[in-house]
Amino acid sequence: MMKHVTIAAFLLLGITGLKAQQKLPVYLDDSKPISERVEDALSKMTVEEKIAMCHAQSKFSSKGVPRLGIPEVWTTDGPHGIRPEVLWDEWSQAGWTNDSCTAFPALTCLAATWNRDISLLYGNSIGEEARYRNKTVLLGPGVNIYRSPLNGRNFEYMGEDPFLSGQMVVPYIKGVQQNGVATCVKHFALNNQETNRMDVNVVVDDRALYEIYLPAFKAAVQEGGTWSIMGAYNQYKGQHCCHNQYLLNDILRKEWGFQGVVVSDWGGVHDTKQSIFNGLDLEFGTGTDGLAKGKKNAYEYYYLASPYLDLIRSGEVSTKELDEKVRRILRLCFLTSMNKNRPFGSFATEEHAKAARDIAEEGIVLLKNERNVLPINLATAKKIVIVGENAVKMMTVGGGSSSLKVKKEVSPLDGLKNRIGSQAQIVYARGYVGDASGSYNGVVSGQNLADTRSPEVLLQEACDAAKDADIVIFFGGLNKSNHQDAEGSDRKGLELPYNQDKLISALAKVNKNLVVVNISGNAVAMPWVKEVPAIMQGWFLGSEAGNALADVLVGDANPSGKLPFTFPVKLEDNGAHALNAFPGGKEVTYKEGIFVGYRWHEKENKAPLFSFGHGLSYTTFTYGKVTADRSEMNAGDKITFTVSVKNTGKRDGAEVVQLYIRDVKSSVPRPVKELKGFQKLQLKAGEEKQASFTIDAAALSFFDAGKHEWVAEPGAFEAIIGASAADVKTKVPFTLK
Amino acid sequence: MMKHVTIAAFLLLGITGLKAQQKLPVYLDDSKPISERVEDALSKMTVEEKIAMCHAQSKFSSKGVPRLGIPEVWTTDGPHGIRPEVLWDEWSQAGWTNDSCTAFPALTCLAATWNRDISLLYGNSIGEEARYRNKTVLLGPGVNIYRSPLNGRNFEYMGEDPFLSGQMVVPYIKGVQQNGVATCVKHFALNNQETNRMDVNVVVDDRALYEIYLPAFKAAVQEGGTWSIMGAYNQYKGQHCCHNQYLLNDILRKEWGFQGVVVSDWGGVHDTKQSIFNGLDLEFGTGTDGLAKGKKNAYEYYYLASPYLDLIRSGEVSTKELDEKVRRILRLCFLTSMNKNRPFGSFATEEHAKAARDIAEEGIVLLKNERNVLPINLATAKKIVIVGENAVKMMTVGGGSSSLKVKKEVSPLDGLKNRIGSQAQIVYARGYVGDASGSYNGVVSGQNLADTRSPEVLLQEACDAAKDADIVIFFGGLNKSNHQDAEGSDRKGLELPYNQDKLISALAKVNKNLVVVNISGNAVAMPWVKEVPAIMQGWFLGSEAGNALADVLVGDANPSGKLPFTFPVKLEDNGAHALNAFPGGKEVTYKEGIFVGYRWHEKENKAPLFSFGHGLSYTTFTYGKVTADRSEMNAGDKITFTVSVKNTGKRDGAEVVQLYIRDVKSSVPRPVKELKGFQKLQLKAGEEKQASFTIDAAALSFFDAGKHEWVAEPGAFEAIIGASAADVKTKVPFTLK
Repeated sequence: MMKHVTIAAFLLLGITGLKAQQKLPVYLDDSKPISERVEDALSKMTVEEKIAMCHAQSKFSSKGVPRLGIPEVWTTDGPHGIRPEVLWDEWSQAGWTNDSCTAFPALTCLAATWNRDISLLYGNSIGEEARYRNKTVLLGPGVNIYRSPLNGRNFEYMGEDPFLSGQMVVPYIKGVQQNGVATCVKHFALNNQETNRMDVNVVVDDRALYEIYLPAFKAAVQEGGTWSIMGAYNQYKGQHCCHNQYLLNDILRKEWGFQGVVVSDWGGVHDTKQSIFNGLDLEFGTGTDGLAKGKKNAYEYYYLASPYLDLIRSGEVSTKELDEKVRRILRLCFLTSMNKNRPFGSFATEEHAKAARDIAEEGIVLLKNERNVLPINLATAKKIVIVGENAVKMMTVGGGSSSLKVKKEVSPLDGLKNRIGSQAQIVYARGYVGDASGSYNGVVSGQNLADTRSPEVLLQEACDAAKDADIVIFFGGLNKSNHQDAEGSDRKGLELPYNQDKLISALAKVNKNLVVVNISGNAVAMPWVKEVPAIMQGWFLGSEAGNALADVLVGDANPSGKLPFTFPVKLEDNGAHALNAFPGGKEVTYKEGIFVGYRWHEKENKAPLFSFGHGLSYTTFTYGKVTADRSEMNAGDKITFTVSVKNTGKRDGAEVVQLYIRDVKSSVPRPVKELKGFQKLQLKAGEEKQASFTIDAAALSFFDAGKHEWVAEPGAFEAIIGASAADVKTKVPFTLK
Repeated sequence: MMKHVTIAAFLLLGITGLKAQQKLPVYLDDSKPISERVEDALSKMTVEEKIAMCHAQSKFSSKGVPRLGIPEVWTTDGPHGIRPEVLWDEWSQAGWTNDSCTAFPALTCLAATWNRDISLLYGNSIGEEARYRNKTVLLGPGVNIYRSPLNGRNFEYMGEDPFLSGQMVVPYIKGVQQNGVATCVKHFALNNQETNRMDVNVVVDDRALYEIYLPAFKAAVQEGGTWSIMGAYNQYKGQHCCHNQYLLNDILRKEWGFQGVVVSDWGGVHDTKQSIFNGLDLEFGTGTDGLAKGKKNAYEYYYLASPYLDLIRSGEVSTKELDEKVRRILRLCFLTSMNKNRPFGSFATEEHAKAARDIAEEGIVLLKNERNVLPINLATAKKIVIVGENAVKMMTVGGGSSSLKVKKEVSPLDGLKNRIGSQAQIVYARGYVGDASGSYNGVVSGQNLADTRSPEVLLQEACDAAKDADIVIFFGGLNKSNHQDAEGSDRKGLELPYNQDKLISALAKVNKNLVVVNISGNAVAMPWVKEVPAIMQGWFLGSEAGNALADVLVGDANPSGKLPFTFPVKLEDNGAHALNAFPGGKEVTYKEGIFVGYRWHEKENKAPLFSFGHGLSYTTFTYGKVTADRSEMNAGDKITFTVSVKNTGKRDGAEVVQLYIRDVKSSVPRPVKELKGFQKLQLKAGEEKQASFTIDAAALSFFDAGKHEWVAEPGAFEAIIGASAADVKTKVPFTLK
């Protein structure tokens, strides 16, 4: 009998049904709209609880509201798989044994599939993995535009074209989010290089910004409905992008109506007031392990932690912005961890491995295939020689935040051995040695990591093995070491590292049936291109890399990937480099403007090594003549183009039919043509299907910087159908009135 | 276009509604009965997946089925609060900052409330904390019977009486489980000492087993509906209790119909075949950090891991038992982490702190109060001297698996300072020093831990301070060090440690207004009992300890706790010790049989220091005459006893009215009387209420070991109403025909 028991007795009306008898507050009532639930929860929160929601409490989590049962937010890298658990406040892995994930192919590979259904499969699969691991937010996908082949992080993005990136990111987002896990599309915006990434101020004209660098983000927001977005490290107009008035307030929220949460990149926040007023909601990664160790709780010193609270307490800043931030985070919680109907996910399953394999197989691009060297003819090939470190090197580890701990990774060598078995003799020679001393140099297949023999000896050994082979397959390219395909630094040149060019030429000399499989997320120079009959772009393919490559190499799968970016012959053929506009210093000016990728090559009439959209098949396709359902259109009309495509070979195959639009005459400089549609047709041998594309005036428009609006100028246009940007098949003129 | 894409295309019929279009399998369909869902999930599982569910994967978690989206099982100590996160496979804390919990009072205190609603409040509050921390199973509560005051772990249990324990455990279970978190009632069974706990074979007669040691577990299973139960470390009939044919198969499952999961105590499993056949479902804690470090994955070597799989693969053992185990674990998952309607919980809230304070205040027992020394009269007390280490010592840390990391712990000294403020001068003297070198000797209130002064100097300082005080409050008793109230070892004697008896006597000599507050989970000897006017049993009270004690000491709360176990005058007055039957060696024989606690004292006519059920109030109660609604009953009848109780003092208060039944004549030895009912009446000053108790023949019965059934023998009985076992107020005879 004490003063407190009255209330306890009031609450506890009986032993059964305690919960039932408590009236459900609005914020916990599923039947209420989320906006009402958000307001109800917000109205119950203290200012301290609100502040606590706006910054990290550990490397990857931020506080919920324990008093109200609102869960913590747990984020996870990254776009290609679920990152292993790390310690509370250190990057070191926590040593758990339940977090060995499926590694899906890198996003460049996904983009190369040009298949929206495959993107949905990717998103759903990785979303299931994130959900099973109880993650609230998946830190991806990335859609920064491929501006230069030297950007160390291009492998995490979706290529050089804003339309392709935008089309491919949307299903990924939907796939993830239908699991009750938020995507966090990154890095918004203009994070197109790793050099000086924390500070470089990007100078870009409004047309390039709106036409090239923003459309994929806009699609992610407006079509994908992403629940969160990640600010970039770099600066724009002198403000860091994580708290950038122009990008976050003016464009993302005001122009696009984004309702979700803006998450900082880890360590991308630099200013409390800008963070308050310029659109950031959730701060992560400020400070380092050292800082954390030096202070009792480093998280209290975050820009949006006690410095923010102090400003509110002093009256200098009101709680208006704080309430907005918390509203967005609460909404995220209601959509994710508090959505009782979200599924339970699944993790590292055979189904996901199969998805990874499917994605990989559809993304592999056959760049060149003279004399039908590929697929490997197992009826005749009795000795197959495999050369190159990338045939055995682990590629799921390293490269920065996308590094994974995988349940399995099948190397190319093992994939071929698994597939070919005793049908042929398989001989392996390493041929070259990468940076054996790097941090991330796991080598699979039982190969010895250290190899101190000279390049000459290794080359000779490979050539000796190759000379009497029926076919030689070289697996080279880049890897996940610094200054290759890795976060934190850019490549130093377009060339292949580690003596590979010399090795490839030597192999080509001793064996005419040489296949080069380039494992990379970036274009590389191929000075030996004419010496080699078959070249394949192999990407970073994840857990099933070797199986997928084997399927395509032996012809179990017919390649159907198309390049999502241009391979220039030499670095200077790329706009940014031609203008000496990469990587800049404290500032980088995108001097090429809208002329990125194929737009530059076509404007300058510089033939690429392999063009955007290029990719061969083991079968052949014949295009009919494209037709339009009208020859003139008004601004409000739609117009539909139709073209027949026939598989004229003997294998089933798939062709990505590409629609480019050309503005024949314009008041402003425009690209020769721009991608505005694509469709991947599955065609059995001999089968013919129609691809059709419906566009409206938006597809004809450019961004008028003066008016700050999209403008489609009346006049003549052409609809161009191509098998790549360089391989135009048919076209039809039309007029916008 | 590759062989795999057909299936992908089949699955992905469109961008929207992927999930909706997949037919929900039965096991994920909430509308189906759990039994159907279990069978469906089971039918989809491989034998390896089944095996993986039956043993730990880390210190506190076990695998789910990642492929099917069935979550991992995450367990947590313990009965008094949610244990902080530890490393994956080490006991060391993981250094998280989101796991500082509310510490609730120890279960002895809960039992001392004799208030079922308070037990529900406790269970619901701790259940909410477990849920917020995403725990599946709470490892508690404990209901091992208090057989000897030396058992180091008595503080985690609910006292000496099977009826009281059974009544108090049921609402706790319901409170936890309504949060979608399973209780794991422990330690089943006969784990009544810590000495040699891993191996000691308990020899007990069937009457004592069924009448004394099992009823609280039976209530937990049949009335509480606990979803899991923990096997004990010790042996019974030569088998470890975690895989014990008699306890688990014959009694728990066959006699009681338990459908839940049997979890091993950590490291309590010793044999694969016994684990397979004798009722264990889920193995935890086998091996140690060292073992784990020595082997790549120590969990594969668990008795129910690869050794089990090997037996199945060799055909020596079928999968019948495995399927049963997995069925039970799946059922647990469906009731907890897969119950979409479970609430979200809450953590370390003010509401939980208030619950902890309410529980503490209702459990504090006023043992003695001559001259109304208590409550402290703040109108007259101008100097208050506080003596004793337990006034400042942290008691939520230490003692074994129930050790916590708390959001706050208010010490008794701080509680009094908070409450009294400037109304009186408060002087503190430590008086004695405990084991300052122990592992768990956190001292709060800014007191210096180390104090190397001699006992004599400390005593003199305290007496000097006390002599001119208006009131002296001594906080002493036991603590959480080894051989006190701590898991892993038993006490060495009934005496208070650290020179306390001498100190108390000295204080009593210099000041007649001495209050002794005994902080412990066990009875202690009080050779100074006649020298001290006021004695209070303070338990381990958790986060709000000091506030609750202050409330009771100053009279804001009127004490209403009653002892859940007997305080003997000396150790030999306890049955187990009188018969030299504690702690035994390799074997311990419970020679006292059913005569545990007050049953022994009454049989032997040994007056206790303070009897079972004893507890004073600041008000007074007068009992009327008990009446029965019939004087004779048949075996199938119920009988109701009614008694009036009046608060005859000037304060509101609460009285626990206790019903004991006496079998006047029996064919077997029976206790003088046994508790069969209790009711806590809240009575305002001057108010009168009736307590009524309805029992049936089960309350009259004993366990007939020969027949192996409960027998109520016709004949004369008495219903005895008492304010404690020793304080009989009124009684009424009746006859069973």
